[in-house]
Amino acid sequence: MRIVVPAGGIGGARFLRGLRAVLADRADSHGNEPSITVIGNTGDDITLFGLRICPDLDTVMYTLGGGINESQGWGRADETFVVKEELLSYGMQPTWFGLGDRDVATHIVRSQMMAAGYSLSAVTEALCDRWRPGVRLLPMTDDRVETHVLVEDGEGRRAIHFQEWWIRHRATLSASEIVLVGAEDAEPAPGVLEEIAEADVVLLPPSNPVVSIGSVLNVPGIRQALQDATVVGVSPIIGGTAVRGMADACLAAINVESTARAVAEHYGPDLLDGWLVDEADADTQVKGIDVRSRPLYMSDADSTAAIARAALDLALELKGRQS
Amino acid sequence: MRIVVPAGGIGGARFLRGLRAVLADRADSHGNEPSITVIGNTGDDITLFGLRICPDLDTVMYTLGGGINESQGWGRADETFVVKEELLSYGMQPTWFGLGDRDVATHIVRSQMMAAGYSLSAVTEALCDRWRPGVRLLPMTDDRVETHVLVEDGEGRRAIHFQEWWIRHRATLSASEIVLVGAEDAEPAPGVLEEIAEADVVLLPPSNPVVSIGSVLNVPGIRQALQDATVVGVSPIIGGTAVRGMADACLAAINVESTARAVAEHYGPDLLDGWLVDEADADTQVKGIDVRSRPLYMSDADSTAAIARAALDLALELKGRQS
Repeated sequence: MRIVVPAGGIGGARFLRGLRAVLADRADSHGNEPSITVIGNTGDDITLFGLRICPDLDTVMYTLGGGINESQGWGRADETFVVKEELLSYGMQPTWFGLGDRDVATHIVRSQMMAAGYSLSAVTEALCDRWRPGVRLLPMTDDRVETHVLVEDGEGRRAIHFQEWWIRHRATLSASEIVLVGAEDAEPAPGVLEEIAEADVVLLPPSNPVVSIGSVLNVPGIRQALQDATVVGVSPIIGGTAVRGMADACLAAINVESTARAVAEHYGPDLLDGWLVDEADADTQVKGIDVRSRPLYMSDADSTAAIARAALDLALELKGRQS
Repeated sequence: MRIVVPAGGIGGARFLRGLRAVLADRADSHGNEPSITVIGNTGDDITLFGLRICPDLDTVMYTLGGGINESQGWGRADETFVVKEELLSYGMQPTWFGLGDRDVATHIVRSQMMAAGYSLSAVTEALCDRWRPGVRLLPMTDDRVETHVLVEDGEGRRAIHFQEWWIRHRATLSASEIVLVGAEDAEPAPGVLEEIAEADVVLLPPSNPVVSIGSVLNVPGIRQALQDATVVGVSPIIGGTAVRGMADACLAAINVESTARAVAEHYGPDLLDGWLVDEADADTQVKGIDVRSRPLYMSDADSTAAIARAALDLALELKGRQS
């Protein structure tokens, strides 16, 4: 069995860890586990201090590879911040990015390989040689794309990098548009369309539907390819609120309500076959999409695995019905 | 009074600290101290992990700015090595370079500024805004030059970067030639020739005469400019042995004996007006050069200041005699 999972950062990474736990129990008679291919969001990527930083790819890699800061959900465990403090002493801008020393090494390896001409796909594969995340981790594209946010405040109307909006301004600056700059000229990374075409099922974790899954869908060709697959999503909204982070602000920026139903409709029935919502949203109905409800808080490893299992089982059920 | 000091790393930096202590007592009636301009060796510079590293400039800057690791003589005090350990975990080469986390920040600032088009001079000035070394620190050139060493071992005859020879091989690989690659096309950095022309005296610290002072002298125009100045050097050789490090191996590579006299002759009477040797070498005579002897071990702040004072006083004496 082959499973494809487009994913962002924390929510995607934790869902994937749950999914891996589920699949470990589903090896075939030869001991082969089902395979997972992750299509990682690269819209959050940013170059700071000359270092190419890929927050979502790293969060997936560290989480599945056992290097993540568990309480925080991103960055490395046992992280130190000596480089960051020194950059501050030199007066280097920006000061709002949480650049850890262990993380710096990852960015140095990536930046060095990219400067030598390697694609982001090749770099990601090389980094995963160390972390062995147990999934095939593909960036959504090898082309440079960046999510920018159109904001307005006392300084006027302007576009800033998503990271600046998200981290520096904690998504509090009023946003009127979110754009994946460079998307029109981007192509899916090698293997992305092939993996989707060969996937038995596709699962959308409860990642940010705008800047995580949404970015992946904005790479020309990916959304279309997914429409031919059996796709089940897990709602990132529970009872009208984003489970994690500041996803509400992203939905507001694109005029989508923060409800499980509105997000499903935003994805659309052409993309989604099934949609898992929380019990609080059990009455959700979306035309053309099979909606099921169950507890959706990924509060620990067991509950997260149970959510992944439910998403997988729904997808397999819907796939069986389609074929 | 204006003093110019061509300098390498540890020996140069410590001598300069002694000289600063001496000059603090020699302010004029307006409280103005004599000024020191350092012409820093950049032949040891190397690009590793995409970072431009200038070991000698940094050693001078950290030593005079209060950030040096005192016992080691190079690198930062309270240094940590998280980035280096992580690069090792990724299998990144080379592994022999002592890349500290605090140091990494310096290299990131430098690399970023250079990538943005700033000259090494401008970058060095910016870094010194933080460290305030109390001297004007100029790189010998803004052009990229690198000291390479022609070595021969089981793998055959080849040229390797000075840092690889010095740090990785601890200068144990037999060296037959030491070349400042790029020297012929290099120009002195802005201010270097002007500062020499306006200098009252020039002092050569007990830096490595081949790869530190020697590199500075190899930048076209600098040696010639120094010949018109009153120059006093401090011997880096005491009793036939290099005081510090592995300078003997460098002298051997260029067929110069490790004696105070041979080094003075190597510099030559066209360059040197005076030469300070240790009491152990009190019988040293060099044609055309005024030789004085005194204790030359820079064992603590006081003895180092005394050596700097002796060098300065000899230079002023010789200058007075010349004019």
